[in-house]
This record gives sequence, C-alpha cells and structure tokens, in this order.
Amino acid sequence: MASKKIIIDCDPGQDDAIMLLLALASPDEFDILGITTVAGNVPLHLTERNTRIMCEIAGRPDVPIYAGHDRPMRRKLITAENVHGKTGIDGIDIYQPTIRLQPQHAVDFMVECLMGAQDDSVTLVPTGPLTNIAATIIKEPAILPRIREIVLMGGAMREGGNTTPCAEFNIYVDPDAAQIVMHCGRPLTIAPLDVTHQALVSRARLQQFRELDSPVGDAVVGLLEFFNRFDSEKYDSAGAPLHDPCTIAYLLSPGLFKGKRCNVEVETQSELTMGHTAVDFWQVTDRPCNARWLYEVDADGFFDLLIQRLCRYG
Amino acid sequence: MASKKIIIDCDPGQDDAIMLLLALASPDEFDILGITTVAGNVPLHLTERNTRIMCEIAGRPDVPIYAGHDRPMRRKLITAENVHGKTGIDGIDIYQPTIRLQPQHAVDFMVECLMGAQDDSVTLVPTGPLTNIAATIIKEPAILPRIREIVLMGGAMREGGNTTPCAEFNIYVDPDAAQIVMHCGRPLTIAPLDVTHQALVSRARLQQFRELDSPVGDAVVGLLEFFNRFDSEKYDSAGAPLHDPCTIAYLLSPGLFKGKRCNVEVETQSELTMGHTAVDFWQVTDRPCNARWLYEVDADGFFDLLIQRLCRYG
Amino acid sequence: MASKKIIIDCDPGQDDAIMLLLALASPDEFDILGITTVAGNVPLHLTERNTRIMCEIAGRPDVPIYAGHDRPMRRKLITAENVHGKTGIDGIDIYQPTIRLQPQHAVDFMVECLMGAQDDSVTLVPTGPLTNIAATIIKEPAILPRIREIVLMGGAMREGGNTTPCAEFNIYVDPDAAQIVMHCGRPLTIAPLDVTHQALVSRARLQQFRELDSPVGDAVVGLLEFFNRFDSEKYDSAGAPLHDPCTIAYLLSPGLFKGKRCNVEVETQSELTMGHTAVDFWQVTDRPCNARWLYEVDADGFFDLLIQRLCRYG
Amino acid sequence: MASKKIIIDCDPGQDDAIMLLLALASPDEFDILGITTVAGNVPLHLTERNTRIMCEIAGRPDVPIYAGHDRPMRRKLITAENVHGKTGIDGIDIYQPTIRLQPQHAVDFMVECLMGAQDDSVTLVPTGPLTNIAATIIKEPAILPRIREIVLMGGAMREGGNTTPCAEFNIYVDPDAAQIVMHCGRPLTIAPLDVTHQALVSRARLQQFRELDSPVGDAVVGLLEFFNRFDSEKYDSAGAPLHDPCTIAYLLSPGLFKGKRCNVEVETQSELTMGHTAVDFWQVTDRPCNARWLYEVDADGFFDLLIQRLCRYG
Repeated sequence: MASKKIIIDCDPGQDDAIMLLLALASPDEFDILGITTVAGNVPLHLTERNTRIMCEIAGRPDVPIYAGHDRPMRRKLITAENVHGKTGIDGIDIYQPTIRLQPQHAVDFMVECLMGAQDDSVTLVPTGPLTNIAATIIKEPAILPRIREIVLMGGAMREGGNTTPCAEFNIYVDPDAAQIVMHCGRPLTIAPLDVTHQALVSRARLQQFRELDSPVGDAVVGLLEFFNRFDSEKYDSAGAPLHDPCTIAYLLSPGLFKGKRCNVEVETQSELTMGHTAVDFWQVTDRPCNARWLYEVDADGFFDLLIQRLCRYG
Repeated sequence: MASKKIIIDCDPGQDDAIMLLLALASPDEFDILGITTVAGNVPLHLTERNTRIMCEIAGRPDVPIYAGHDRPMRRKLITAENVHGKTGIDGIDIYQPTIRLQPQHAVDFMVECLMGAQDDSVTLVPTGPLTNIAATIIKEPAILPRIREIVLMGGAMREGGNTTPCAEFNIYVDPDAAQIVMHCGRPLTIAPLDVTHQALVSRARLQQFRELDSPVGDAVVGLLEFFNRFDSEKYDSAGAPLHDPCTIAYLLSPGLFKGKRCNVEVETQSELTMGHTAVDFWQVTDRPCNARWLYEVDADGFFDLLIQRLCRYG
Repeated sequence: MASKKIIIDCDPGQDDAIMLLLALASPDEFDILGITTVAGNVPLHLTERNTRIMCEIAGRPDVPIYAGHDRPMRRKLITAENVHGKTGIDGIDIYQPTIRLQPQHAVDFMVECLMGAQDDSVTLVPTGPLTNIAATIIKEPAILPRIREIVLMGGAMREGGNTTPCAEFNIYVDPDAAQIVMHCGRPLTIAPLDVTHQALVSRARLQQFRELDSPVGDAVVGLLEFFNRFDSEKYDSAGAPLHDPCTIAYLLSPGLFKGKRCNVEVETQSELTMGHTAVDFWQVTDRPCNARWLYEVDADGFFDLLIQRLCRYG
Repeated sequence: MASKKIIIDCDPGQDDAIMLLLALASPDEFDILGITTVAGNVPLHLTERNTRIMCEIAGRPDVPIYAGHDRPMRRKLITAENVHGKTGIDGIDIYQPTIRLQPQHAVDFMVECLMGAQDDSVTLVPTGPLTNIAATIIKEPAILPRIREIVLMGGAMREGGNTTPCAEFNIYVDPDAAQIVMHCGRPLTIAPLDVTHQALVSRARLQQFRELDSPVGDAVVGLLEFFNRFDSEKYDSAGAPLHDPCTIAYLLSPGLFKGKRCNVEVETQSELTMGHTAVDFWQVTDRPCNARWLYEVDADGFFDLLIQRLCRYG
C-alpha cells in the first residue's frame, strides 16, 4: 500500500487520543500533512493542547498542528466533559507540551494545503464536529476535487443517539456543518455509533493494553480506564465504544468493516431531532447515494490491529 | 383474567386483519365495545369494508363497526397499496359483506361510549394512524380519565423507518395525531417496529397456519402469503413482520414482551424526519416518561398464542 | 339583497360582542343558522356564556348557540385576558343568561346543518381561532361544496402581529386550523389587522355610541371604553381597532372595503414566526390565489353603518 | 465630525454602486479601510469587478478591494439578475477595470484589519448578504470588541418582502449569516425596506441627477434608469427604492432617519417564512433589544445629501 496523504481533524477526547496514537504509529501508510483541531468534546484551547500532548507521547514533533474553529457554525458550543472529564483526556497526566501550535488557522492551512495538492490526493479524517471541514469547503470550494475521500466518525442509525435520543455527539454539535459535508460531492465513508458500539473496550481487551507494558501502553490504559466509566454506568455495557479509532482502522484495513452505500442527510431544522442522521439504508427514497455507511466491524480484528500498532511504540 | 373492555381502531391491512381475528377469537378476555376504522393502509371506505369482512369471517356480526376520519389532521393521506395490495387485504376473496356499518362517526361513538364508562375502564387499541384517537381526545378531553390504557402499534427506534428513512407508517401518516396521543397523559404501551420486526412470518410458521386447515386458517394463509412478498423482496428478510397482532398479544399475554418506560416524542415539524419517534431509551434527557416502549418479544410464544387462538375458529 | 344564511363562529371578546350586535341587528340581511363558540380570547365556558349574554342583550333568544372546541388542534390554548379582561367582555355587567346552550357540539351542528343545505348556500363567519371550522372540514369534507364563502377576521401583513412580533391572535392560537381553512378550496375573504387597524374607536366615535342613549348603546360604550384601554396604552393609538365587526360589515356593505386576491399561507412550523400569514400581495411567487385580502376600509362609512344598525335596538 | 474608519461589504448592484459613490465622495467623513465583496445580487466574480469599476469611476484607486464568500453559509446562492441585469450594474458601460483585486480573502482581511484596530474603532457597513461578516465573526470572535457599530441594509417589517412574501433579498439569501450578525452583541443599525421604500427615485429626482452633468452623474443616471424599470413594472410605484445608500446616508446624517431600538430575529428554519425579520417593534415579547430599526427617512433630505455629495465629482 502506498502512503496515503491525510489530514486529521479532531477534538481529543480519549478516543480521539487513541485514534491519533494509531495514526501516528503507521508512518508507512500515512503521510500526515497536518492535524487540525476543533471545539467539540472540550473547548478548542484544550483540544489543540491535547493533540500536542498526544503527538509528544507518540514522539512525533514533526507533524504540524493547527487550531480551527472554537464554536459551531450557528449553534452554541456543547461539550462533553461528563464523558471525557474536564481535560478531555482525563486518565493521563496533563502538562504543557513543548510541541508548539502552528500560527495558521486550521481552515487556512487546509485551503493552502489542498490548493497545492493534486486532484484526488488527500484524505480527510474528521473525528469531531465538522465545523472546520465545512468552513474550508465554504471558504474555498476549489479544494473539493483535491479531496480523495473523507472518512469520518459520526452519526447513528440503529443505535439512537448518545447526546440526545436522536443524535450522536459530533453531528449534534454542528449539524449544519455535517449537512454541508454530506453534500460536498466527494467520496464519503461514515463510521457511526452503529459500528463503533461494536468496538467495546471489554475487560479482556483492556488487559491486552495493559500487557503492552510501555509508556504509550500505560497512557492508553489510563485513558481507557477513565473512558470506560461513563458507558459502563450509563448503558450497562461491556465497556466503552472506541469511536474515533474506527476511522483510521478503516483506512488501514477496510476489510474489517462492512458498509453500504446509501443516502445520508442531517436534520438541521427541528430541535427534537436536531443532528439526527437520516440514513436511507433500505432505499425507501430515491435520494442519491452520497456516503458509505459502515454497519459492522470485526471487533477482534480491530483490536488486534490496534494492539499490533501500539506495540510499535517502544 | 377478567374481561377487558376494549375499542379497536384499525386500518386493515393484512396485519390488522389478523389482529382482528386474534381479538375476536378471545371473547373471554375481551369485551369489544366497538371497532373503529381510519384511513391508513388504504382509504377509509376500504378499511371499514375490510373490517366488516374480517368480522364476517370470524362469525362476529355482533361487534359494531364505525368509520372515522378519512384523512390525517393536517397532512395529505398517504396509503400503502405497495405493501397491502389495492384492496388492503389482498390474498383473500373480497366481497360486499352483509354486516353493516354503523351510521355514527367513529369519533362520536368513542366520545359517547367513553363518557358513559367508568374511570380507568376502557382500553384503546389503535393499530393504524392515530387520527381518530387524537380527534376524540380533542373533541372531548373529559374522556381521558375513562381510558384505562392505550396499546398501540407504531414507531421505530432501532429499526429506522419503513416508510421514510426515519419513520414508521402509522406515525408518519399522522404525526400530529400521534404526538397528541403521546401527550394525553394516560398509560401508553407502544409496539414499534423494534419489536414487530422480531415477529416474522417464516416459512415454518406459515406452514403452521396452513395446518389449521379451516376457513379462517385458509384466510390467514392467503393474507400472509401476499403480505410476505413485500418484505421478502425489500428487506431480504425471513418473512413479513406481523405488526398489529402484537398489540392484542400484549394484552393477552404481556409476559411475552419486554418493554421499558421512557419518554417518546414525535417529530412533527421537519419533513426530513417527519414522524420519527424520538425515544429517550437511555434517559439522556430529563423529559418525563410517557410510554412503555416494547423492545423484545418471545416470537415463538407469540406465534404459539396466535395459532392456539386461531384454532378456536372451527 | 336576499337574506344570507350564515353561521357565526366566535370567541367574545368585546369586538366579537359588537360583531354579534351588528349581525343580530340585521335580520333582513342575515338568516343566522347558529352561533358556534370556540376557545380563544377567553376559555370556552366564557365564550359560550358571553355569546348567550350578547344574544340576550340583543333580544334574540331564537338563535341557537353551540359550544365547540375548548383548545386548539395541536397547541396549548393561549388566551388574551390582558386585552379583554377576565370575563372576555369586561365593561358590562356579567350575569348568568337565561338563553340556554344547545347540547350539540358545534362541529356536529355545523356538519348536520351544512349537510342539509344546498350547494353554495351557507356563509361562515369565523372571528376567533379557526379550530371549529377546521375540525368540521376534517370530520366531514363533504360539507365543503355547501359553503358559499368564508369571511374571517385574522392575520396581518403590513401591521406585524399583535400577539407575537409576527402573528395576529386568532391565527397564532391555532395556526394549524388556519392553514387548513386557507387550503379548503372555498371562496375566502380575510379581514386582517391591516384593515381592522384602520377602524379605530376614536373619542369622537365613542361619543357617537354614547349618543345612542339606549341599553344596547350603553353596553357598547361600556365594552369599548374597556377595550380602548389596552391599545391606547400599548400602541399609543387613537383608539382600539374594531376587528371582528369588519367581517359582518363586509357582508353588509362590501363596497366599504378594498381587497386583493392573492395567496395566503400560514406558518405552522417555526416557533419564531408561528402563525404568521405569508401574503403574496405582490405575486412574487406562483402560488395560486386562495383568498381575498382586505387592505383598506372606509372607516367613516364603517362606523356610520355600525351606528345606524345599533340604532335599531330600541 | 472626526473621520470614521469603515469597512464596506457589498454586492453591487446598482444601489450598492451608488452607495459606493456616496461613500467615496466623503473622504473627510470616512476612512475606508477596505471594501469587501460578497455573492448576492450577482455572483462574486461580478460583484468584485463591479466594485472595482465603481472605485475607478470615483477616481479612488487607493481603496483596497477584497473578494469574500461566493455562496451563503448553508443555502444555495440566489441572485437577482431580474432586478439588476446580467452584469449587476446594467445601465452603464462595463469594462475590465485597471484597479486590481487584493489577493487576500475578504474574511482574512477583516480579521487582520480588526485585530490590528483599537476597541470600538471600526464601523462595518454591509449592504449585501451577511455571509462575509458572519464568517469573520465565526472565524475570529476576538474581533467583536473592535467593531464600533454595524450599519446594514436588510430586512422588512411593514413592507413584506421583495424576494418572497416574507423576506427581503439580503436576509433571504443568507438568513443564517444574518441571524449570527443579529446576535453578535455589537451596536447594530438596520435600514430595512420599511425605510428604503421611502427613498424612491421619482422622475423629478432622476432629473436632478441628470442636471449633475458630469461623468459620475451620467453613470448614476444610467444606473437609475435601468434600476427604475423593475419596480415601476412590479409595484406600480413612483420609482425604485434606493436601498443601500441609506446606510452611508445614515452615517453621514443620522438625523435624516427615525429609528427605534428593538429586538430583531431572523427566521432560519421554515421555508415558508425563511429570512423573515421578526421585529418586536411593539415589544410584545421580553426579548432584549439588539438593534436600532430605522422606519422613517426624510426622503428629500436624503436626496439632497446624495446630490450634494455627487456634485463633488468633477
């Protein structure tokens, strides 16, 4: 597999943090052009700091990190400290990283980077609210042909929502941005709760991370132990769903996932269902397919891949 | 079990038809005060005729039948001949039944009947769009305390919709009426697609109906053979879901079902998600519980009950 | 002019009360088949009582009075005691009238009355929320051809709203019912705030009513003195607008009014603009004309007509 | 009067063009930091070109011109060639101007310019859709305290809409952006159709422009003769309303206008009323005042001012 040029747009969050570790551990597969950050799980000044911490933990000071939008396009920012803790990555030691933030705005970086790229050459991997991505598309529509694919974490069909009865967090925070991305016309793959809720951090799997017995492994264990609390209490589940790493895992090993091409639209008008992803899975409408909706993951294969890559950190 | 006073409100539909046969076969358990009909699967003049045919097949000319609203409160009527055939009960011979329609409007019947009843004494069983029930509540709110319970078929959470990507047919046809019923303040039990899609008419089960070897059994087989076509082609499933009989089965044998009390609201504003049932299954909001949402059925037990009752028809 | 068969549907309210006096003083022009009442300015039990009081003051015990819906189709009832006082007709003595309420529901009366009438023979005059009218249309669509015309008070274009920044009271209280009436397909004439705000009860005009020097005149003066308070304080205007009598005045003397046929739609989805009447006065859309929108009244001619008729009461 | 630092954001448009001539003729009063352009009356590549032409006609190559967003935040771009002609400034000769467009994006210019300014020091004058202004606020909220005031043309209360029955063009094109500006928290003055429809280019006034007898005067006459056609035919009015120059006239001579502080919200959800400005002119809600709504202009004074300034061009 030739190296894929990617830009990651994230809002760490424990699961974003592990997604970053997975991506940063795969230098042969990914040429990470930059990591952009957005307000989401926690405010922007924390998501960019957390991203810098994770790159530092991964020993990758070479990847430029940019801060983007500090609130959604139209709605007030909602954060999820109840899930992620005050820092966003509760479970590990927080400190001021030495890696510096790039001065350029995330959107300006993406515009510049994509305008300088060839057609179909750059994959975007958003794992937070889609504010930065939508703003980039709006500011410079000429970037669109340069995008090879967008692989994002967000939405829910079979699983209901995790933030409202109808909506998943990333989409709910900025449904307007999400709808812009759904309609951008580029190849789109979505990892919704339907699939991420199959990737649960069970006790057995947590034990595997413990056995990594390395600084990165310890960080992962700390993050996951904290992250597991919320879902265990709330949903009485076997462990927390490892949402965001599904995007990178899909890029590394698409065969782990089953998906279906269908139409996906985002509710942006009604408060009751705001942010709901209307997935025409059974093609009961004649709306055109605009996304590949992942609905099944080989969870053991997914965790094997994750463990194997995290082993690479000494 | 003492006999339950019930009013059935339906729009046959093959599955309504079998629901009627199940209810009419249970005279010890149900004192059917009347059957009201509404526009839904097919137009009103067919749903009332189909109801009369089914009562005739069941040998129950004693049950009074009323026609109600011929269209939803605010929206244009949508019907489902693609599922049910032109007659609504394709699969059996259609004829003009000798049982006559009552001259009274269904809503006026319900108002009169309930105003003459004691508190907490009458159970309503709607298996079509909720237009008649909502109109009755609006016309005479004083009926509300007389209602013991409402057990309805409608809505979907885990299953997406069957009419739009977001909505189940009964709720989609008249979401405004549905929202009025959700907020009526009386005990409410909902059999959504989540549970009815577990009650599939498999080949083995269809064979059991064939073995009834009676006029009623033959009618049921005719109805189900037609009904199975649509879902087998559309969803590639093991057989059609027997939606409406779940309501009567729940009243006969509630232990067959698992449910959870939660808040249910109906989307009435946005076309994209119109008729979606927003179910706060995991209590992520502080909205008060207004319904019991059935989510699991012992399908074998359900079909055993159905077969056993249909055996009663000679 | 041959006598017009009319049904008045109202929610008195001082201006409804004077509308009733105007209509009841015109027996040659109007054959009043019935007066139906609806919840609006005050709750239903007050609007029906107030209607009975006004018929008693007018010496017209022969006109049957019916109570209809006690709340809007979907929304919670909003009343306007701040404008009309606790009784709805503050300004006159309130007592228990000897005229009795008919036992029949207003909707059932309208259905029965219209189904027994010839095509194009009955004019409906709604001056409150349109709940009863819409419910009648929904319950029995076959009444529609019997309606000759609907002349209603409601809505606003140039004047903004009087209840929210965007909506007039009658339409705001039940926008869903209003939209059903707008789309009923029968000839429709609308007296909105645009025209009723030209019919102001100035001091000079109030003095004319005083000079009637009769029991009915005294009642009118009492009602208007109370009614004038609100608008004088709120809008710093020259006197209160005599909304509802514009409907009857239009039927008596259409030449007093200027109107334009255009499309009128009612906002029923968004809370911000709920109940706004979207009037395509300048035909910027291709929506079909469904109403005649009154926009100008000869105010002096209107008050002359009103005074002249009220003189008839001894 | 000390010189006011202003940034003009426009989409010429004949009336924008004359607004520019008025502003550019007032160098003592205005220090124009830049003119930004947005898609609106015509697409972006024409609004920026038209702006350059107008600066060239005004002999002001010193003012930097920037292109901004080429479409609204969420909705598809709607343009108004039916009003303005294919070029946007039909009525004068179109040519490729020698003034160059600045390479910087309008939003980036505004962020940089405002971040370098003192608090309360820069007035924004948007006369097109508010996309650029909203995008600037979203991208860098820290600019907000630097804004002294926003004086914009848009919206309608008493006049209905000019684009839909409910909405004025600028607001309708990007209601989401407009709502963001309404809620930005800075002093806001709005010149809606209510006031601009009082500034009509009558024949007598057109004659006055003719008598300027200068190149700029000839251009203005050409623009206005074309611009007058649409309104004369559509609304049978005395001449076209000179919308956009009202903003600059207000800044030059606020005493020409009457306004009232009130709450203004923009409809962003319902298609029927999309872009309607809900103006709580009579304070029927308790929403806080966020704008000064101009409702009356001394039209003769306005045209005197305009003529007097245009005289300055030789």
